[in-house]
Amino acid sequence: MSETITQVASRARQAANVLALATRATKDAALEAMATALLDQQEAILAANAADVAKAEGAGTPAHMIDRLRLDAARVAGMAQGLRDVAGLPDPVGEVLRGSTLANGLELRQITVPFGVVGVIYEARPNVTADAAGICLKSGNAVLLRGSSSALSSNTAIVAVLRAAAESAGLPADIVALVPGEGHDAVKELMRARGLVDVLIPRGGAGLIRSVVEESTVPVIETGVGNCHVYVDADADLEMALAIVLNSKTHRTSVCNSAESLLVHQEVAESFLPLVVAALQDAGVTIHGDAPFAAFDGVVPAGPEDWDAEYLSLDISAAVVPDIAAAIEHIRAHSSGHTEAIVTGSQAAARRFTAEVDSAAVMVNASTRFTDGGEFGFGAEIGISTQKLHARGPLGLPEMTTSKYVVTGDGHVR
Amino acid sequence: MSETITQVASRARQAANVLALATRATKDAALEAMATALLDQQEAILAANAADVAKAEGAGTPAHMIDRLRLDAARVAGMAQGLRDVAGLPDPVGEVLRGSTLANGLELRQITVPFGVVGVIYEARPNVTADAAGICLKSGNAVLLRGSSSALSSNTAIVAVLRAAAESAGLPADIVALVPGEGHDAVKELMRARGLVDVLIPRGGAGLIRSVVEESTVPVIETGVGNCHVYVDADADLEMALAIVLNSKTHRTSVCNSAESLLVHQEVAESFLPLVVAALQDAGVTIHGDAPFAAFDGVVPAGPEDWDAEYLSLDISAAVVPDIAAAIEHIRAHSSGHTEAIVTGSQAAARRFTAEVDSAAVMVNASTRFTDGGEFGFGAEIGISTQKLHARGPLGLPEMTTSKYVVTGDGHVR
Repeated sequence: MSETITQVASRARQAANVLALATRATKDAALEAMATALLDQQEAILAANAADVAKAEGAGTPAHMIDRLRLDAARVAGMAQGLRDVAGLPDPVGEVLRGSTLANGLELRQITVPFGVVGVIYEARPNVTADAAGICLKSGNAVLLRGSSSALSSNTAIVAVLRAAAESAGLPADIVALVPGEGHDAVKELMRARGLVDVLIPRGGAGLIRSVVEESTVPVIETGVGNCHVYVDADADLEMALAIVLNSKTHRTSVCNSAESLLVHQEVAESFLPLVVAALQDAGVTIHGDAPFAAFDGVVPAGPEDWDAEYLSLDISAAVVPDIAAAIEHIRAHSSGHTEAIVTGSQAAARRFTAEVDSAAVMVNASTRFTDGGEFGFGAEIGISTQKLHARGPLGLPEMTTSKYVVTGDGHVR
Repeated sequence: MSETITQVASRARQAANVLALATRATKDAALEAMATALLDQQEAILAANAADVAKAEGAGTPAHMIDRLRLDAARVAGMAQGLRDVAGLPDPVGEVLRGSTLANGLELRQITVPFGVVGVIYEARPNVTADAAGICLKSGNAVLLRGSSSALSSNTAIVAVLRAAAESAGLPADIVALVPGEGHDAVKELMRARGLVDVLIPRGGAGLIRSVVEESTVPVIETGVGNCHVYVDADADLEMALAIVLNSKTHRTSVCNSAESLLVHQEVAESFLPLVVAALQDAGVTIHGDAPFAAFDGVVPAGPEDWDAEYLSLDISAAVVPDIAAAIEHIRAHSSGHTEAIVTGSQAAARRFTAEVDSAAVMVNASTRFTDGGEFGFGAEIGISTQKLHARGPLGLPEMTTSKYVVTGDGHVR
């Protein structure tokens, strides 16, 4: 008989109580042990993964999904290196965020502490299993992992290796566990485990994230839905604009920080549209355009749904706007609050756009693709938060902590 | 025909877009205008309040509830002074939390920005209407206020004054609005207004907070349920312990940072129990005790429900524990995560207690009553957060903001 989620979560909480007090030295030693163990036991992991891949192929899963699912020696080595990289990052726990002595002599300190137990719900790639475990371990959090059923054998093998390695380094095995059970009911139980699970982080498509937000009583950090815009201003350098649009759209299409929508100021439309339509089409991009764009061969007329679409493919919606105010208004109406970019030579336009656009990241003369924990220099990320509560933008180690006030007196009363 | 919540929230969002760009000078002028208007128009406010009080008296409302509801010239003056105090605090918007130049030359800044639209659901006291409006205004947030129906006339009068004052200072009136409609259905609509309302802050009893957490799809900051513990360690100065227990329990019983539970190390039980039982009983406190406490006259034997009770009255649960580990274990099992205090002369015990107790505030040799935005020197607070996401402890102005990354390049692509 398999364990219930409540049982697994209760043991994770016990483990979290121990982990919260672990020193950086212990946590880094555990990360190193996990990295070594992944490499030492890669045969077992690859065998488990081969079973997942065979099952997926038998079920007629599309090739690009199979590619996301498949592990090889290089990908296992990447997982191990990721854990070592996290070991090299500063410990986010125990930082004094505020400290002062109050007028009455009380000493006040606000100190970062782990959340406790973090649940991560994710799709497809089994390497997320090791990445999420490493970030949670370093930030002092026990983690309950819920991957996709297509990767169950791979994830089970990886978690077994990580748990044994944690124990060998003197930490409880239960700092990492898979959520037991099948299908949506198991996920639902995880989402209602308020009090046992402190934070839930869904990583995946818009449907997954919406269902977690709707149903969870555990606090959620939303990640990764990106309907990102590039706005080419009247004062843009058009060569620069072309490079930024192309990079934002085509550098990698399946990621949340790729551009999905292009807005062009009408003053530069006549000169810029022929350039950008040709360049995007040369790169294999299908343009879903408004009337000015749709006048070009091969451009598909945009329907209302295109302005809200996160294509994650070689598609982009495109419109001409009368001015920067209209661009900002369009973004307010349709953006998912991830990343928007302006290309402009005007200081006034840059200042206005960065002030008025309410997204996790606002780029000036740079590709939307830079919204990334690695690019921002944070060293590791568990996702990109598109919500306003707690953390916005790349979720690095500091964002995986909460804080506690420690107040010291010598008999102080009010 | 009254407006729908969606209409009111949409207008609040429009107003929030304007308010987010307002300078500190404009916001402070609006706060000053609001303070002046409250004083100038106090007759209308007091008349509206008198109608609420008469209605409550007619309905047989208990006297202490009537007292919370009642306004007088001093309380209106207090509301005005509160707004002026907030004007004097630093602007939390526009602070650079992180800033660096990346290896590729991109300039990265993480800047505080308002949430947008904040919903506040609260009970009884009409002065919260002005307090919440002031804190939200200063932090650049439009606010939707939902007070109790017993204070509807008072709140309507106060909000009318605040809206007119905001407009006189050049800000949209819609930065402050009451949530229309009656009963739980209206609250429910507010809780489902995801996308229009950015954050909901319930201020009130455990029942209100639980229902908001259960039903809201808008992100919530939980506030104010406090089952606070005082633990008297083996190494405590017993005079100090007595003063801290008394102050924590009796200084003000109806507030979330008052103590509800007392734990005493068995080594000092024999000497401390007679002192603390007598002192608490002299102060009118009913002790709900375990066996060692219940051996004293007048102590009521505690039932299992007492350990989780937030009495908010002259009652306290009390138990003898074998050691500090048992005290910490008891607190983990029963605390609401608000504030716990240890009284000890032992550095080792203080270090262990502050490390292992997972609450918003942990006091060493100080009363639980110090967990308060004013006492902590934050100048204003909208509540005490007992959750781990976003903010923990007193919610001051900085906690009423989120952040945005602004990234500036000169044509950077990946």
